[in-house]
Amino acid sequence: MPVSLRPPRDIMHFDVACSLAYSVREPATLVLNVRPAQNARQRIVSERFETTPTAAVESTTLASSGNRLDRVQLAPGEFRLDYRARVSLEPSRVDPASVGECPPSELPLDVLENLMASRYCEADRFARFADKVFGDMAPGHLRVTAICNWIHDHLDYRRGSSNAHTSAIDTLTDRAGVCRDFAHVGISLCRALGIPARFASVYAFGLEPPDFHAVFEAWLGDRWYLFDPTRQAALDGLVRIGVGRDAADVAFSNSWGGVLEPLDMQVSITRSDGAAEPADRTVAAVSVDAG
Amino acid sequence: MPVSLRPPRDIMHFDVACSLAYSVREPATLVLNVRPAQNARQRIVSERFETTPTAAVESTTLASSGNRLDRVQLAPGEFRLDYRARVSLEPSRVDPASVGECPPSELPLDVLENLMASRYCEADRFARFADKVFGDMAPGHLRVTAICNWIHDHLDYRRGSSNAHTSAIDTLTDRAGVCRDFAHVGISLCRALGIPARFASVYAFGLEPPDFHAVFEAWLGDRWYLFDPTRQAALDGLVRIGVGRDAADVAFSNSWGGVLEPLDMQVSITRSDGAAEPADRTVAAVSVDAG
Amino acid sequence: MPVSLRPPRDIMHFDVACSLAYSVREPATLVLNVRPAQNARQRIVSERFETTPTAAVESTTLASSGNRLDRVQLAPGEFRLDYRARVSLEPSRVDPASVGECPPSELPLDVLENLMASRYCEADRFARFADKVFGDMAPGHLRVTAICNWIHDHLDYRRGSSNAHTSAIDTLTDRAGVCRDFAHVGISLCRALGIPARFASVYAFGLEPPDFHAVFEAWLGDRWYLFDPTRQAALDGLVRIGVGRDAADVAFSNSWGGVLEPLDMQVSITRSDGAAEPADRTVAAVSVDAG
Amino acid sequence: MPVSLRPPRDIMHFDVACSLAYSVREPATLVLNVRPAQNARQRIVSERFETTPTAAVESTTLASSGNRLDRVQLAPGEFRLDYRARVSLEPSRVDPASVGECPPSELPLDVLENLMASRYCEADRFARFADKVFGDMAPGHLRVTAICNWIHDHLDYRRGSSNAHTSAIDTLTDRAGVCRDFAHVGISLCRALGIPARFASVYAFGLEPPDFHAVFEAWLGDRWYLFDPTRQAALDGLVRIGVGRDAADVAFSNSWGGVLEPLDMQVSITRSDGAAEPADRTVAAVSVDAG
Repeated sequence: MPVSLRPPRDIMHFDVACSLAYSVREPATLVLNVRPAQNARQRIVSERFETTPTAAVESTTLASSGNRLDRVQLAPGEFRLDYRARVSLEPSRVDPASVGECPPSELPLDVLENLMASRYCEADRFARFADKVFGDMAPGHLRVTAICNWIHDHLDYRRGSSNAHTSAIDTLTDRAGVCRDFAHVGISLCRALGIPARFASVYAFGLEPPDFHAVFEAWLGDRWYLFDPTRQAALDGLVRIGVGRDAADVAFSNSWGGVLEPLDMQVSITRSDGAAEPADRTVAAVSVDAG
Repeated sequence: MPVSLRPPRDIMHFDVACSLAYSVREPATLVLNVRPAQNARQRIVSERFETTPTAAVESTTLASSGNRLDRVQLAPGEFRLDYRARVSLEPSRVDPASVGECPPSELPLDVLENLMASRYCEADRFARFADKVFGDMAPGHLRVTAICNWIHDHLDYRRGSSNAHTSAIDTLTDRAGVCRDFAHVGISLCRALGIPARFASVYAFGLEPPDFHAVFEAWLGDRWYLFDPTRQAALDGLVRIGVGRDAADVAFSNSWGGVLEPLDMQVSITRSDGAAEPADRTVAAVSVDAG
Repeated sequence: MPVSLRPPRDIMHFDVACSLAYSVREPATLVLNVRPAQNARQRIVSERFETTPTAAVESTTLASSGNRLDRVQLAPGEFRLDYRARVSLEPSRVDPASVGECPPSELPLDVLENLMASRYCEADRFARFADKVFGDMAPGHLRVTAICNWIHDHLDYRRGSSNAHTSAIDTLTDRAGVCRDFAHVGISLCRALGIPARFASVYAFGLEPPDFHAVFEAWLGDRWYLFDPTRQAALDGLVRIGVGRDAADVAFSNSWGGVLEPLDMQVSITRSDGAAEPADRTVAAVSVDAG
Repeated sequence: MPVSLRPPRDIMHFDVACSLAYSVREPATLVLNVRPAQNARQRIVSERFETTPTAAVESTTLASSGNRLDRVQLAPGEFRLDYRARVSLEPSRVDPASVGECPPSELPLDVLENLMASRYCEADRFARFADKVFGDMAPGHLRVTAICNWIHDHLDYRRGSSNAHTSAIDTLTDRAGVCRDFAHVGISLCRALGIPARFASVYAFGLEPPDFHAVFEAWLGDRWYLFDPTRQAALDGLVRIGVGRDAADVAFSNSWGGVLEPLDMQVSITRSDGAAEPADRTVAAVSVDAG
């Protein structure tokens, strides 16, 4: 059983916000995934989703992922979204040494798809590599942390070193990438070892410069735990937005059927209380999964 | 509105079966996806799932996909699965010219993930190619048929020309593949055009030699329609097993944690009635989606 | 035998020039390949290779390719090369219908390496594709022109659509590229058909905007013929600089062992006589190979 | 200056042989590269090249590489080549610590092409990886040995793990390959570090089972030195056949324009003297380059 590292009620409050502006040349459908997920560990206290000009917005929470999508029909001209929310976050923080891997015989069958290779995570190609480097380690949370350490030590974080087509094979070849690439490598290596893993987009407290951030989750014990091979933000200061197989599933925006151009993007996350600081990022196994 | 091509109740009955034998050297977890999906158009009249030696079997229907999985713990020795089912199939058959594409503004948001690139379907790379070849065609079922025709005309069906790592980019480069590769190319081109598409494994009446078959589904109008770019079986003789982003999601078997070797595989599908033959494969738009 | 389309002595004179400026931060070795090749059909009337500051220059003509290289040792600071040459060009122009392919039984054995796959020209992967599209055409110069036409019709010329790692597989997938990518596709398809082909860098009369240009040569009959799938310049207005397997071999500059940054590049080619205009680009089979 | 480890005249004699049989269905041109190269360190004492049925053979030594090619026109039926040669080998064996790298400022310009990326050696993609792992080592023969050790320690030698399209990126991803793949990785890493490297096919004394073997050469000091990351044969027991950019250039046979099927292949190398055994493979820096 996981050993808790904090008292049971240790709640932080964050104000998260993003502003996205587009120049729309031809009518388009925009699907946004910027609202934090909602569950027992991450509650939306209040939120405001505002468009300029005012537009009809269709909001949905996907049953499969819990991702909260907004679809907007854009007319030609300038379009602007301003989103802000107050979120109460109560991450589970437990002793990593107490969190084991879940054997395939006990894995919930709907978690299984997170073992499969995906567009940017060619896990089917990394079986031998993962086994050589991580195969002899004791299974558990600490092994996934070892994967993150390996990524941090062997890859350079470099803006501009990758693009929308870059996959884990590319990143491991080029030895450089950004947060999404680091997450893709982490996911690929986990899956290759039989550990379900998925991509997560987050608002990350303390990230400099502020931006949407990408991390990954691995299924350990009986729930999803957060990992960030970039080490750019504290794990218990992450407000989770969307999850999916990889970045293909979790864009903060996708558009179809028209022509539009991004003009501006602002992302922020601040503390709205002073009660507790996010923990040191290396100590605890952190989960915002309601479990 | 789709124009029906057949009287409303036109039900066929099929007996499907498969036998899979493995030599197990180290204890392993096997997850099987061989049971046909169940919905209003495809009913399981009876089925038998038998293992030799007798083993505990955990059976689940995934909420997200409707795929019906069986998990079995294998002990060293020989293991054999014999599955058979009687299925009543009532495919919807409508005039293809009456089936249009669904605009992104109206697409159900939980279908959206089927627009995304996946491991074997790098749709993000084919935008220009798809647009050049199919961009000027009228949207709808006939455009997806045009994609299938293109695949049939430009690729060679060749056993042994691909392997478990082969993706749509590979297949389009090499211009050869098997049913799964043909499906991956069809899915990639659909997604690149903004048409949701997914991989489907099926029992295919008339397929020679008998085997599990792979086709794809495209979301048109308000449901999933079946397509088979190999033209190896009639579309209304397909009993659908599993669906997913691509072949990574829909293997008939996956194993973890052990060592096992396939010994034998038999697949069959026969008519258990004489009432109706599957229709000519080129006439109708066919769906087994309950809609 | 090739049928000549012009009187035997139809000589044009060109002035070609380039200026390259670099900011050198750490001592580096620079190897330049900017001088036109010299042979009986392309004579250097005069040339000047000038560096600022004055630097020791080691000049070589490679025996294998005829490429004329200059090696310069760069000290920190700004470095500038100014090269200019007057070239008399006497391209062979013959009736394309009179130029056949050379059977493998007669191919000079030192031309053979130009049948092999190279970094950016994965000819080994295109055998089936090339055969399907071009296999039934009559062998000869017109078949290579058909390849160029296919490239011109199926790929978009788009600055910024490719980078230094882009290969023919990438370009055929993405359906866009620049001159070097078009050449790589042409070379790959030729080699896949058994026609030796190589990359050529050129000064191209009439190219807008002026720049180094990339075309390719195919071995037909008993010599190398020029082809330009971009159709951006007349074939008989090309002053050939370097040849090689692909762009990896024929950079106008390569540097090692230091750190330098390009500051500026100017390329020009003008007529220094008024006697003859380059021919219409579609009429003749053109070669500047001394044969 | 390299420090010699053996007395100046330390000559071994080998008998090498190969037999290749083909079933020819349609007339084809076969180009063979099975004869050992000839230079001051590797002399052909006698050789016999015999075909059944007797066929016209055109033999050439390429000026650029020294590769010795034989072209044969094959008629339908069975074709068999029997080649055997006695070779006197006088490899240079020097102290590896005395062999440095050659700075780009002094590199012979005709060696330069061996720094470029090629079909199976995408050196352009490995700059960061090579620098991270080997960048801090002292330049020289020992650094290339370190590359070979890394390959030996990180890749599995596995028959069947690769195919004719497998490149260094594939091999480094999959972490398995055969001799040609190991050589491609070694070449790629050398080139990425600025060390010219090329592929070499050899008769390898002591190789089990007997076969054509693939190794690589790196240009160090003033000549080519042999390296074998598979460690399957002693370096000074290698009789070099062909060299080239990578395996694309150095096949023992290539055919064009017909249809033929390999029936049988036998390769052998034995000592024809008892005077000296090949040295321990880890002690000396070995070259058969005439320098």
